[in-house]
Amino acid sequence: MKLRTIAVVRNGVKETPRDWDKIKSELIFKDEFVKGLYKLNHFRHICVIFGFHRSRTTVLRVHPRRDPSKPQVGVFASRSPTRPNKIGLSRVRLISVKGNVVTVRGLDAFDGSPVFDVKP
Amino acid sequence: MKLRTIAVVRNGVKETPRDWDKIKSELIFKDEFVKGLYKLNHFRHICVIFGFHRSRTTVLRVHPRRDPSKPQVGVFASRSPTRPNKIGLSRVRLISVKGNVVTVRGLDAFDGSPVFDVKP
Repeated sequence: MKLRTIAVVRNGVKETPRDWDKIKSELIFKDEFVKGLYKLNHFRHICVIFGFHRSRTTVLRVHPRRDPSKPQVGVFASRSPTRPNKIGLSRVRLISVKGNVVTVRGLDAFDGSPVFDVKP
Repeated sequence: MKLRTIAVVRNGVKETPRDWDKIKSELIFKDEFVKGLYKLNHFRHICVIFGFHRSRTTVLRVHPRRDPSKPQVGVFASRSPTRPNKIGLSRVRLISVKGNVVTVRGLDAFDGSPVFDVKP
């Protein structure tokens, strides 16, 4: 299946921060999809499905949080980006929906990540 | 982004059932991805990202649960399959992991749906 980018993450984050929970991100929606945001602002939390656009490799066994002292687990038992499909999933706090801009807090995606879906 | 099918849903469900919560599904993983399931059985619930393989249309405003008496909302404020990217997301109860078969309860996916990711 081929995914279309519906929005792009803007948060200025280029390297892994100390605490993603504090990061505020704007999801800049393409104009053609803005109609689909109607009443999204009724929710306090939303799920964002996005692309790990900087990840290329697939590794099926990983150390959690890239910490070699932690025993390996399968990639599906982790949230590592080294998965067969480079898709991330985060439950985030919704701050506002204004025009084509959805502002959230706690999204663990780098600046420029493609967004594929948003669900309540 | 192009997604690869990592597993297929087997549950015999061809039409929307009265209650998805009771449906038991087997996710039949391709052999090449089985290594990634290591220690998934430590979790009681998992998130499954799958394809709405029978959905073709995109509708940006929908009536929740296809009930015309309910006021319309944007598709991103709903779980309707008529989204730009035909991907579904469900949090389900993990029953067992045996070889290449992951058994879950409560997955709202039809028989034959492609699975793209599983996350704790």
